[in-house]
Amino acid sequence: MQSVRFPRSRAEAIACDAEDPLAEARAHFNLPDDVTYLVGHSLGPPAMSALEALRRVGEHDWATGLVGSWNAAGWIDLPTVVGARVARLIGVPPTAVSVCDSVSINLFKLAGALLSSGTVARRIIVENGEFPTDQYILERLSTLQQADFVRADPGAGLDSLPGGGILVRSLVDYRTAAIADVKAVEQAAQRQGAVVIWDLSHATGIVDLRLEAWGARYAVGCSYKYLNGGPGAPAFLYVHPDHVDVLQTPLAGWLGHARPFAFEPTYDPADGVSRFVAGTPPILSLATFNGALDVFDRLSLRHLHDKAQALGDLCLAAFDRLGLETSSPPIGHPRGGHVTLRHPDGYAISRALAERGYQTDFRPRDTIRFGMSPLFLRYVDVWDMSEALEDILLTRAYEDPRFAVKSKVT
Amino acid sequence: MQSVRFPRSRAEAIACDAEDPLAEARAHFNLPDDVTYLVGHSLGPPAMSALEALRRVGEHDWATGLVGSWNAAGWIDLPTVVGARVARLIGVPPTAVSVCDSVSINLFKLAGALLSSGTVARRIIVENGEFPTDQYILERLSTLQQADFVRADPGAGLDSLPGGGILVRSLVDYRTAAIADVKAVEQAAQRQGAVVIWDLSHATGIVDLRLEAWGARYAVGCSYKYLNGGPGAPAFLYVHPDHVDVLQTPLAGWLGHARPFAFEPTYDPADGVSRFVAGTPPILSLATFNGALDVFDRLSLRHLHDKAQALGDLCLAAFDRLGLETSSPPIGHPRGGHVTLRHPDGYAISRALAERGYQTDFRPRDTIRFGMSPLFLRYVDVWDMSEALEDILLTRAYEDPRFAVKSKVT
Repeated sequence: MQSVRFPRSRAEAIACDAEDPLAEARAHFNLPDDVTYLVGHSLGPPAMSALEALRRVGEHDWATGLVGSWNAAGWIDLPTVVGARVARLIGVPPTAVSVCDSVSINLFKLAGALLSSGTVARRIIVENGEFPTDQYILERLSTLQQADFVRADPGAGLDSLPGGGILVRSLVDYRTAAIADVKAVEQAAQRQGAVVIWDLSHATGIVDLRLEAWGARYAVGCSYKYLNGGPGAPAFLYVHPDHVDVLQTPLAGWLGHARPFAFEPTYDPADGVSRFVAGTPPILSLATFNGALDVFDRLSLRHLHDKAQALGDLCLAAFDRLGLETSSPPIGHPRGGHVTLRHPDGYAISRALAERGYQTDFRPRDTIRFGMSPLFLRYVDVWDMSEALEDILLTRAYEDPRFAVKSKVT
Repeated sequence: MQSVRFPRSRAEAIACDAEDPLAEARAHFNLPDDVTYLVGHSLGPPAMSALEALRRVGEHDWATGLVGSWNAAGWIDLPTVVGARVARLIGVPPTAVSVCDSVSINLFKLAGALLSSGTVARRIIVENGEFPTDQYILERLSTLQQADFVRADPGAGLDSLPGGGILVRSLVDYRTAAIADVKAVEQAAQRQGAVVIWDLSHATGIVDLRLEAWGARYAVGCSYKYLNGGPGAPAFLYVHPDHVDVLQTPLAGWLGHARPFAFEPTYDPADGVSRFVAGTPPILSLATFNGALDVFDRLSLRHLHDKAQALGDLCLAAFDRLGLETSSPPIGHPRGGHVTLRHPDGYAISRALAERGYQTDFRPRDTIRFGMSPLFLRYVDVWDMSEALEDILLTRAYEDPRFAVKSKVT
């Protein structure tokens, strides 16, 4: 990855904003005036197009169209229609993505289908430190389907684990924002007869993903972070079309049937990735997510990633200047959309920042995550946050008893 | 069940409306003026409180509260809070219900947990003709967990199937609206060492359910029919508190963990039925469902069922008069919230009714379902529909080529 320029003064930050190819995206959001929102990596804010879609699906499609909206408003096609829009953002064919259920459920479906397919060794591999729900879902699935469950050392790589199986791996680490080398992992998987399911939760909408080009065949991901789909928005599931026919979902709900409205007594999977849709999807949430995606329509993912990278570098340069530690990849190194600050008084610092209007998220025991959503954050916003942080540290404002940790985490 | 009076003339229908203890509930809905909506058994219409909740969760909680709304707006507690409100409507303790995912997914969780529990024979029993998604989910689950899968004759009863297992049974049949005798089925289950999971999809919000009193310990159900929760609203899952501790969900998502935000590497189930919450629920849909339940707050389920019964009897009396066939339980016999009309020209008749403003749903090959939602339908509405039906039949208006079946179903 080539290095991205980042501003080193407030004047340079203002100049970067003036040249920012994404500058006009900010107008699609209507964030509270008194907040600089650095938590887009956890819950993206609503674009106006998302709120507009929410009003339309409730007050028009449901209230006026009633049950006829399943066809007339295209509700029945939303898993596929929204899937095609997500497909563009992850670099895969438009028919290769379905939107439905949660990341947890979709991971169970996909890993379960691969386990039953006979195409790979019955072993599931997860790195220690992987996002907890992925660990829980996969360990339980292994027990249910009597497959091996292997916890690997982070970064050990598939070459140290011969014998194949199903590796589940986050493309962007939820703690550090480190980015996996997808091509290299896929190549190692091929050498070992393994397959990889990528968890794109912290990657989609912020990394210039080219999954098909990188050789990735299976993925799940979350819609409510950088895609701004709304709290608990339905997740997505990707299977490359060349590999979907042999997969049978363990969750054989009626909307994954080839003919759901024929009410046949036995299950016959729909063509392609639509077979992974299970029960009736939550349409109000799904239609709102569809509206949220309007913001991405004419944007370049490369611009999104470059700006997130520059904003993160700006932060990290400030941390350096202040003698602060991070667990994120350093300046100039590829990373997802957030940077971390590690500090024993992290909780109090994050509360002091919040009082000045800078929302971040604290993760025990000592980590503040700063989300660098490039759609609505300006360079000057992040610059001003870094100055507020400097002031809080220099004046030890975080020692104010109002910011004390209520229950000490041990 | 005692017989319920139903009107036998338009004047009597108007008199019934004047005395209707549910009459004021209609004011909570804002249905299109030109529609008499007889499809509440498929998708309930929005109460104004539901649309208000949708606006609030989008435009206030999400747009203004942002990620802080997980706590400040109580999003994190919604599966439990909404569960307690559903619990009242099905007659079980308030802590015994979680709201999350779809009926299909919840059925998989519950049947899967029972299969793994060692408390019952590893056999799943489903009647032929049961709602298709239940059949698909359970057949696939049986294969995955190497349990027996038995298709039983409808109405054969558990006494003809000794040996125990898990019977999944709709409390109200989705085709005919026949109501199962829960007490009798539970007693037969006890005799045979079986357990029953009730699918309440067509029963909740329309039948005066007393599941705990009837000895029912496990159930799933749908929120978007008579509960009017919105298209694809999250479903619910009930486990009696005495039986939940031995159950481990096969879908061990993080929000079913005892301490989801401690990010522990191994799964430890939450207390009670909350362990069945899996991934992050679709909050916009869930909050809207919560708003929809306001309508039920001060209503008697007995009144709801009696009125649905009387409206259904009114319909069936008209069918009798017109020499039409039904597959629903006859006048005076307990039934769920809809009645069926079977006619070889059912499709054309349902289209002719729609042209006159009466929305029904047609199910191949020959069945029209008329939903009798007692919250917003008046006696006079159903009476007028019966007169329109009579006119359509006498004038053979349904033979209009505009109403022809486009693709003949065979």
